[in-house]
Amino acid sequence: MESTTKNEQRGVSVSKNDVRNAVQDKGLFPKAFCKIVPDVFGDFARPLFSKPTVNVMHTNGAETKSILAYLYWKETGDLNVWKNLAQDAVVMNLDDLLCSGITNNILLSSTINRNCFRIPEDVINTIIFGIEEYLEELRSLNISIHFGGGQTADIGDLVQTITVDSTAAARIRQNEIIANDRIQDGDVIIGLASYGQATYEKSYNSGIGSTGFTAARHDVLSKFYAEKYPESYDRQIASDLAYTGSKRLLDPSPVAGINAGQLLLSPSRTYTPVMKAILENFRPSIHGLVHCTDGGQTKCLNFVNDLHIVKDRLFTIPPVFSMIQSESNMSWLEMYKIFNMGHRFEIFTKEKIASDIIKIAQYFNIDAQIIGHCETAPNKALTIKSEHGTFQY
Amino acid sequence: MESTTKNEQRGVSVSKNDVRNAVQDKGLFPKAFCKIVPDVFGDFARPLFSKPTVNVMHTNGAETKSILAYLYWKETGDLNVWKNLAQDAVVMNLDDLLCSGITNNILLSSTINRNCFRIPEDVINTIIFGIEEYLEELRSLNISIHFGGGQTADIGDLVQTITVDSTAAARIRQNEIIANDRIQDGDVIIGLASYGQATYEKSYNSGIGSTGFTAARHDVLSKFYAEKYPESYDRQIASDLAYTGSKRLLDPSPVAGINAGQLLLSPSRTYTPVMKAILENFRPSIHGLVHCTDGGQTKCLNFVNDLHIVKDRLFTIPPVFSMIQSESNMSWLEMYKIFNMGHRFEIFTKEKIASDIIKIAQYFNIDAQIIGHCETAPNKALTIKSEHGTFQY
Repeated sequence: MESTTKNEQRGVSVSKNDVRNAVQDKGLFPKAFCKIVPDVFGDFARPLFSKPTVNVMHTNGAETKSILAYLYWKETGDLNVWKNLAQDAVVMNLDDLLCSGITNNILLSSTINRNCFRIPEDVINTIIFGIEEYLEELRSLNISIHFGGGQTADIGDLVQTITVDSTAAARIRQNEIIANDRIQDGDVIIGLASYGQATYEKSYNSGIGSTGFTAARHDVLSKFYAEKYPESYDRQIASDLAYTGSKRLLDPSPVAGINAGQLLLSPSRTYTPVMKAILENFRPSIHGLVHCTDGGQTKCLNFVNDLHIVKDRLFTIPPVFSMIQSESNMSWLEMYKIFNMGHRFEIFTKEKIASDIIKIAQYFNIDAQIIGHCETAPNKALTIKSEHGTFQY
Repeated sequence: MESTTKNEQRGVSVSKNDVRNAVQDKGLFPKAFCKIVPDVFGDFARPLFSKPTVNVMHTNGAETKSILAYLYWKETGDLNVWKNLAQDAVVMNLDDLLCSGITNNILLSSTINRNCFRIPEDVINTIIFGIEEYLEELRSLNISIHFGGGQTADIGDLVQTITVDSTAAARIRQNEIIANDRIQDGDVIIGLASYGQATYEKSYNSGIGSTGFTAARHDVLSKFYAEKYPESYDRQIASDLAYTGSKRLLDPSPVAGINAGQLLLSPSRTYTPVMKAILENFRPSIHGLVHCTDGGQTKCLNFVNDLHIVKDRLFTIPPVFSMIQSESNMSWLEMYKIFNMGHRFEIFTKEKIASDIIKIAQYFNIDAQIIGHCETAPNKALTIKSEHGTFQY
């Protein structure tokens, strides 16, 4: 186990993507962020092949962020954390679809598995209402997404607390798909900030998203939670890896007026309103879109072959990630592999339209800037030049 | 806890349906087995409202049957149990869709959550390949279902072993929907046997399906499994409720040549090939379709208001359920509420076409018979007259 990271020792397998990639056919556009398949929902009047439409079906979820919500709710009784978690379960999915250029004709369902001794009905109600409310909010922002329903299973022999996943299905014209196959030499990369407060957000967003929560939770929170809530982690992991931080949820955070729990539970921002505006104006010039989820700032490597991606003008690291690093003492090289570190969405495009795209983002009060560029190279590579050093991936 | 059943004490909440029903809007056809929603995937050339098509998005899964697969695999090393489980995860969903009249234009995805310390990659590969293979088999039977992809998450802090869920999305002409709103006085109920060997099955099917596995597993298997595999159950449940049976998985079962584990792990039969043929011939006369999952033989009560459903000509109880009852000593009244007891699919229709429908089922070597009928009543009610007595629900 010497060479494995703490994350791997906590049961977050690095090979997850390998599993997925090994066994599944890649669909019509092998490099696309989401798998694109032929149109199963095709027109009934005309033969399928005459219609240049395709489908996507995609699953994602709040993953272990639900445990943090559980702890916060147990400590405070505040059901609102579950509404935020509902948003996480939706956005993790929706912003993946967005990378394929999809902002419309989306049907979403929820898959909730719970331990009913620990998760009562009012929590389930709050999550499901929360999803419905959040989809309504998205529709008010012109994103056409609808709730198809959901399933809640009581499987306490399998689940210690609660898992909240969502699946989305969509239909789109094939020529509107962003397939990530045009990322090329000379492209600039525009990053859309993960933190701050967008025009459509009600309060400050820490930028954490819904990725890296096994690390964030164990590294930041104190042993108090291992002792009081043994159901909140896998007792197979070594005790010196379980809740090794110094914080309690209600402790102050580096951001004034927000406690540590709230900083970590900040709901994932969706980029759909801003990206919809950008796509409406510049779709043909968008070469690639990347949602920086698992893999963090290295996620982009999944979508290139013979390019060197240089990220040398990153955003200032927002406080939530500095807090995690200072609690974990994780290497910065590793931090960039797990967390978004400041921008959770990347647009690969021509330099000449960058300033127009940045203006659209700023109109939504989302910070945007050119954070890097792409260069031809013999093999794929990524260089991150950060305020904490230069890292090669 | 005195008045609760063993199942409730093991964390299978009776209020699950209440939760689901309370919070979610019921869609276009409130009595339909699956929620039917307006056509999100509509034609791009014409306005949505001019097209009489609708959508369904539905989630279901193998639930705690995955634990039984885990135990069998750990004891024998036989990866094939995971292929069967893949079939369970698909069929539990597909045969729900079938109740709404859907056999085509289906896109399916998988949602797998695992503890990667206990579930290695070859298990995940077997499940995902298993899904792909099973969908191919279904297509060879003229069911147009396609794999949209899937997600595998490593969340050992949440999941003790593995959960395998699937979500299906479909598009159908509105006039083809079976909405369960025409179940009426005078209807007969045709049951399609859950056991035996259909023409499209490779071996004897015990009929167990994928429902009631918290009870089936704990009631049939011996304490040996609680001790050897503490990860296979929720240690919150009382020890006199955990693995209280006498059987080991490799013990002989009541069926010659099949051990107890194999009898319980028999994959859920799909009724789609036979129902497709029935719908093609008799769709306008099909008043209702019920997949007897959670709720077992009482599931039908979800779809009527002022009818008394009388089931007085049930199939002989197949050996798997007799084994469960004899191990658990559960009341027969309760057995009919948890298990299908011999038929897992019900067709509510006119008596005069019953013999034609039964012939179609028999063509697929699936036993079928009129198992009961519906009568006008002041309130909904169900009477089961069985070989073990008469029960009122």
